Amino acid sequence: MSQRGRFISLEGGEGVGKSTQVKALADALRQRGLDVLVTREPGGSEGAEKIRELLLTGSDDRWSPESEALLFAAARADHVAKTIRPALEAGRWVLSDRFVDSSLAYQGGAGDLGIEAVRAINAVGIGEDFPDRTLVLSLDEGAERARARDADGSDRIGGRPDDYHRKVTAAFHIIAAAEPERVKLVDASGAPEQVTKRLLEALQDFLP
Amino acid sequence: MSQRGRFISLEGGEGVGKSTQVKALADALRQRGLDVLVTREPGGSEGAEKIRELLLTGSDDRWSPESEALLFAAARADHVAKTIRPALEAGRWVLSDRFVDSSLAYQGGAGDLGIEAVRAINAVGIGEDFPDRTLVLSLDEGAERARARDADGSDRIGGRPDDYHRKVTAAFHIIAAAEPERVKLVDASGAPEQVTKRLLEALQDFLP
Repeated sequence: MSQRGRFISLEGGEGVGKSTQVKALADALRQRGLDVLVTREPGGSEGAEKIRELLLTGSDDRWSPESEALLFAAARADHVAKTIRPALEAGRWVLSDRFVDSSLAYQGGAGDLGIEAVRAINAVGIGEDFPDRTLVLSLDEGAERARARDADGSDRIGGRPDDYHRKVTAAFHIIAAAEPERVKLVDASGAPEQVTKRLLEALQDFLP
Repeated sequence: MSQRGRFISLEGGEGVGKSTQVKALADALRQRGLDVLVTREPGGSEGAEKIRELLLTGSDDRWSPESEALLFAAARADHVAKTIRPALEAGRWVLSDRFVDSSLAYQGGAGDLGIEAVRAINAVGIGEDFPDRTLVLSLDEGAERARARDADGSDRIGGRPDDYHRKVTAAFHIIAAAEPERVKLVDASGAPEQVTKRLLEALQDFLP
């Protein structure tokens, strides 16, 4: 039986360069000989992609905050059961573009549900498979707001107002302070190659 | 402001005559001058009906037990927010063909999640709007199994084996024992009119 792989998630507000860094980090890990599965949320499995369609289309009041949080948790439970857990058990590393901490920050911290209520909903489907490490790409507040305005904000959640996205950022800081071993804030400023280097440094203790 | 209405749910395993009794009970309540909204789960609101499609189609292993329970809870949160809560606040009575106790019995008791875990997931979306009374149509075990086999078992959940449906029945008994004030078992044997009379008797303390 192969050794269980590592599960890494990348997080951050809108416009911090997360998609670019997911690709760059996967390449860097593969260059170290690791077998890496890249996935993303919401989605990442057939059932979760169906739920993603429900979540990201329609008007902003299509779902109550409670329904929205439960739909994200349902999609995540499917993503874990069908994609992430089998890969980890086969010894692969899994790199997910967003995971549970997005729900904790968006629905829990920036919405009205609270981080702990959202964590409880999600724990049912995640079980033992919380990420081994979560890297939160962070910019100082001014830079984050400017980049957020430039980002694609055309879906139901990206399109919410500045104040919502400021609360998301604050929530990521709260989560990182509460779980310093799992969740690391990583400076997202500067050249993309520099950011990737910082991400690798924050995974140093796991690297072969 | 009108007085808040009463929220009644009807429950029971497959084939106990639940759909017939929902109609008959609604008629009987209307004859007493009550404004009754009849609704059903899964579904009962636009968003919940979309989730219902995901839940009742596809192969039996389409969703993990955790995803299934979270999808039911998401649909129910929408049903409460968009249909049930507004009607109760307008002073109407709401009669729902299935509600949270179906999840407690099917996903919690007959599935592997446990009744308390399923209750916790659902409490987020239901809030203060648990039913005022839940009437569980019950037959003795032999009669229940015979009727279950005659019932339409063509969807993902109705089509599960006898053993699953026996566990559902047992779970309804456990729930009724745990919350005797809210949840009442009602004998579903005999002529439909007799069963409706028993349902009304189990609502006697609420009737004008």
